[in-house]
Amino acid sequence: MIRTHEAGTLRPEHAGRQVTLAGWVARRRDHGGVVFIDLRDASGSAQVVFREEDDAHGLRSEYCVKVVGEVRVRPEGNENPDLPTGAIEVVASKVEVLSEAAPLPFPIEGNSGVSEEARLRYRYLDIRRQQVGDALRTRSKATYLVHEVMRERDFVYVETPNLTRSTPEGARDFLVPVRLQPGSWYALPQSPQLFKQLLMVGGLERYYQLTKCFRDEDLRADRQPEFTQIDIEMSFVDQDDVMELGEAIMSRVWQETVGYTMPRPLPRMTYAEAMARYGSDKPDLRFGCELTDLTEYFAKTTFRVFQAEHVGAVVMPGGASQTRKELDGWQEWAKSRGARGLAYVLVQEDGFGGPVAKNLSEEEISGLSAATGAKVGDAIFFAAGTARAARDLLGAARLEIGRRCGLIDESQWSFLWVVDAPMFEEDGEGGWTAVHHPFTGPKPEWADDFQDHPGEALAYAYDMVCNGMEIGGGSIRIHRAEMQERVFGVLGISKEEAENKFGFLLEAFKYGPPPHGGIAYGWDRICMLLSGGDSIRDVIAFPKTASGFDPLTGAPTPITTEQRKEAGVDAKPRAQELV
Amino acid sequence: MIRTHEAGTLRPEHAGRQVTLAGWVARRRDHGGVVFIDLRDASGSAQVVFREEDDAHGLRSEYCVKVVGEVRVRPEGNENPDLPTGAIEVVASKVEVLSEAAPLPFPIEGNSGVSEEARLRYRYLDIRRQQVGDALRTRSKATYLVHEVMRERDFVYVETPNLTRSTPEGARDFLVPVRLQPGSWYALPQSPQLFKQLLMVGGLERYYQLTKCFRDEDLRADRQPEFTQIDIEMSFVDQDDVMELGEAIMSRVWQETVGYTMPRPLPRMTYAEAMARYGSDKPDLRFGCELTDLTEYFAKTTFRVFQAEHVGAVVMPGGASQTRKELDGWQEWAKSRGARGLAYVLVQEDGFGGPVAKNLSEEEISGLSAATGAKVGDAIFFAAGTARAARDLLGAARLEIGRRCGLIDESQWSFLWVVDAPMFEEDGEGGWTAVHHPFTGPKPEWADDFQDHPGEALAYAYDMVCNGMEIGGGSIRIHRAEMQERVFGVLGISKEEAENKFGFLLEAFKYGPPPHGGIAYGWDRICMLLSGGDSIRDVIAFPKTASGFDPLTGAPTPITTEQRKEAGVDAKPRAQELV
Repeated sequence: MIRTHEAGTLRPEHAGRQVTLAGWVARRRDHGGVVFIDLRDASGSAQVVFREEDDAHGLRSEYCVKVVGEVRVRPEGNENPDLPTGAIEVVASKVEVLSEAAPLPFPIEGNSGVSEEARLRYRYLDIRRQQVGDALRTRSKATYLVHEVMRERDFVYVETPNLTRSTPEGARDFLVPVRLQPGSWYALPQSPQLFKQLLMVGGLERYYQLTKCFRDEDLRADRQPEFTQIDIEMSFVDQDDVMELGEAIMSRVWQETVGYTMPRPLPRMTYAEAMARYGSDKPDLRFGCELTDLTEYFAKTTFRVFQAEHVGAVVMPGGASQTRKELDGWQEWAKSRGARGLAYVLVQEDGFGGPVAKNLSEEEISGLSAATGAKVGDAIFFAAGTARAARDLLGAARLEIGRRCGLIDESQWSFLWVVDAPMFEEDGEGGWTAVHHPFTGPKPEWADDFQDHPGEALAYAYDMVCNGMEIGGGSIRIHRAEMQERVFGVLGISKEEAENKFGFLLEAFKYGPPPHGGIAYGWDRICMLLSGGDSIRDVIAFPKTASGFDPLTGAPTPITTEQRKEAGVDAKPRAQELV
Repeated sequence: MIRTHEAGTLRPEHAGRQVTLAGWVARRRDHGGVVFIDLRDASGSAQVVFREEDDAHGLRSEYCVKVVGEVRVRPEGNENPDLPTGAIEVVASKVEVLSEAAPLPFPIEGNSGVSEEARLRYRYLDIRRQQVGDALRTRSKATYLVHEVMRERDFVYVETPNLTRSTPEGARDFLVPVRLQPGSWYALPQSPQLFKQLLMVGGLERYYQLTKCFRDEDLRADRQPEFTQIDIEMSFVDQDDVMELGEAIMSRVWQETVGYTMPRPLPRMTYAEAMARYGSDKPDLRFGCELTDLTEYFAKTTFRVFQAEHVGAVVMPGGASQTRKELDGWQEWAKSRGARGLAYVLVQEDGFGGPVAKNLSEEEISGLSAATGAKVGDAIFFAAGTARAARDLLGAARLEIGRRCGLIDESQWSFLWVVDAPMFEEDGEGGWTAVHHPFTGPKPEWADDFQDHPGEALAYAYDMVCNGMEIGGGSIRIHRAEMQERVFGVLGISKEEAENKFGFLLEAFKYGPPPHGGIAYGWDRICMLLSGGDSIRDVIAFPKTASGFDPLTGAPTPITTEQRKEAGVDAKPRAQELV
């Protein structure tokens, strides 16, 4: 090692010791001949004193230096109690510049705002900043903790292929041409789902993996084309076993990274209840403002807008005092979400205000406060339409209310399981799609006839929700080919299509597959929560922008004709090979 | 859980206990009304007794079953001391078939030979076989141990991107079209080399990762297009620090998976010595048969073949008694390696035999035994040409001799470091290529003038070798842009090309990069060694064949015109975007 000690570890008991440090010039203060430099390394920083200005003459910000000196207790009055090394300093006798630094594109020290573009372009400098480096260290610590729990429980870590065949999800696969088999392509996995099920057929019983998944989807603000999953699968289990394990992992992680003790077992809420009370399958329970179902209430209304399958409401505390502009803002907000607007009634001292009030009968108006729990000074927002659309809108409005009114205690952790989701939902074209994925089993009571009631059948599935975000989701899988075929039937997946896409899984199910289930955790999101960031980009060492661009390396890039040829991109498969 | 106990854990102290087991029907024996079934799960197996033939009537091989029964000590004389559960059996009172199994393509129990094609096609059944499942479990255990060592030493686990920019190695990158930026492509990383160096510039100091790497190369027998690396990088270190860490990891892994205590520190051998003595930069030290340098000895020979830059020899013990056919076989072997043949002299009771002997002078012949250490009954193989080609051939012959003569003790472990490799080697076209990679630093004594002596300059690099295989390799890196540019100069990489390919690394080096170095271990190969397999395919859950084909999923596959369009495969970049 170039150094004898790490700067951040020096304490008064090192006084008198000759040490060699290596790190970066963080801060520099010149005091009439004496120069103080904060020397930073991964462990923290220590103050280094140069008695002659000359010795420190050339040292500028972020130079990488090696310093030899003697540790001494700081003169009385000069201690810095905020710093672990604040009681000592190192009196330099020798300094060597290991490498120089050009003028920086942004300061490393301090919390001054820096554009994200600059941060990503110079990510290696960004990582030197305390908060960014700490986020990566927290992520690493959390990763160690996951391994620890899995090791205690005898899980087998298995790496599944990254170069594989298009998955059932099909569209949105990243494709990879194969030079040695021109015209043939691998796909990058959207998840190891099929492989982990095959490992269960293989009798491994307890599998996990920390693995990258890939999805070439339209990038939303906080998505990445590659993301990391903690992927778990177990045999001979039921739902409670998987959920207990999930709690064991996450409670260890939260306990030992942020000191939060998770109440176990976590509360469970059915999907139906979550949708009814919070308009969301991932409710944020850190605040109230629950939704009210007014369908019955308005069953006989003459107001055309409320003559709908479902009418619901959510109350905004203090919302009656919003300006006209603010109220208009809500309309814009609703329209940006695809709704026609957001009907509201203002509960005022002298009655009910807002344009909707006029359309309601005396009776309808007068009972509103009791029906919704609104008090004088509040606003009531309404949504009417299909139950799903109305609740979606109100659920989103609820979250927006929580933010605007500061109802969310950001220091709180709110975990729960959402269970009993439907197996299927309508795809808007007269068919059905899987709410989870097509390998999710029905709850035992729906095992025989889910296909006859696709709109009602419940899945044997569970999602872990934290602070309004889904952080993990899983299910007990189908392990019988016969049942799998019934699911494909509901989903309109033909025998031929099923055979083509995952015939190998159906084939595997012919050979004594065990009952099995599992869960996958979104590791980027979890690490974001743990490190208190706003974006998963904060916990990814080298993230891409929302459009999939990497400002650091410039990827993706055009490729040359030569590369196309070399990679076999333009080799066309023969027609008969296509399916 | 569907079961109360794991089959393999039952012992006499469980006698009298009512248990529920779940697993697979492994072996079945019918004894006049009583049926014995070995029930296998991941923990092992237990004998289950069905008193009525009827109860077990339908149970066939590899059915997945749940059995309720009572544990009892086996009747005297029926114990099986070879089995951990051999003292007990479970008397079944209830059995439930969880799933049936079709007739198997190959038996799960026993060690009967199965074609690799069938094994890969039905990999999920192959994994049920003891040896295959155990190899995956050993790999998992070794992975846990790596994390354990790295955690003890405060390493930060960082995930680097899988969708990135073409790396310096360039050719052999797998390319990935980007739907959202038609005409632009990502590349899959051949290693995280550049990113881990950037993390060092970022001040993380201690990085590691277990990560997939990708290389679209002509597949040789035991390569995979995706492979796993334990990737490590450290700042402020010198060579000894990285080597000490490497030994710490591998000694823990070998100790706790196969019980082997590695002698530490491991022996070190220079590249030059390894090439001279073993004709290999990864010598297998489990046997002798060292090479002899006869260049001086034949300096004045009149035998044209030996008038070469280098003449060397290796002795095959007992090789004089080989048949004509065997000796011809060596010629074929040498030709298959691109040599013209393998000259030999047989040391016989009555003198020296073989066609070469006639071409040598009396003096040359008579001193041969002393010069090479050959005894009566041995054969001496010669190679003449460039030092490199001759040693390559003799090194390979040495290994072949070791195999044919049974000189290799397969139970032995032979570790060493090979150090001081050359920085560059001639590329055969008048230029130079990097022996390691272009980021490898020179040994300190070559720091200033390696560019003037590219054929002699030594790299600050180290390879860990086990039983004749390179299992890990690393180096102290260049951290100064100026030195990096000199290396590119030797390699004939133009400023423009360097800028285009890894300008971001050179840019990063402007901002106080620390001295750093690291190592990468080939995890597949290490796990193969630990599990005693012959092929890395044995320790990969879902491997591909040598041609990159996956017999299980059928990947890679042709893609449709629709997929091509969707993925933006045929979007051409504009000419000015190309570089």
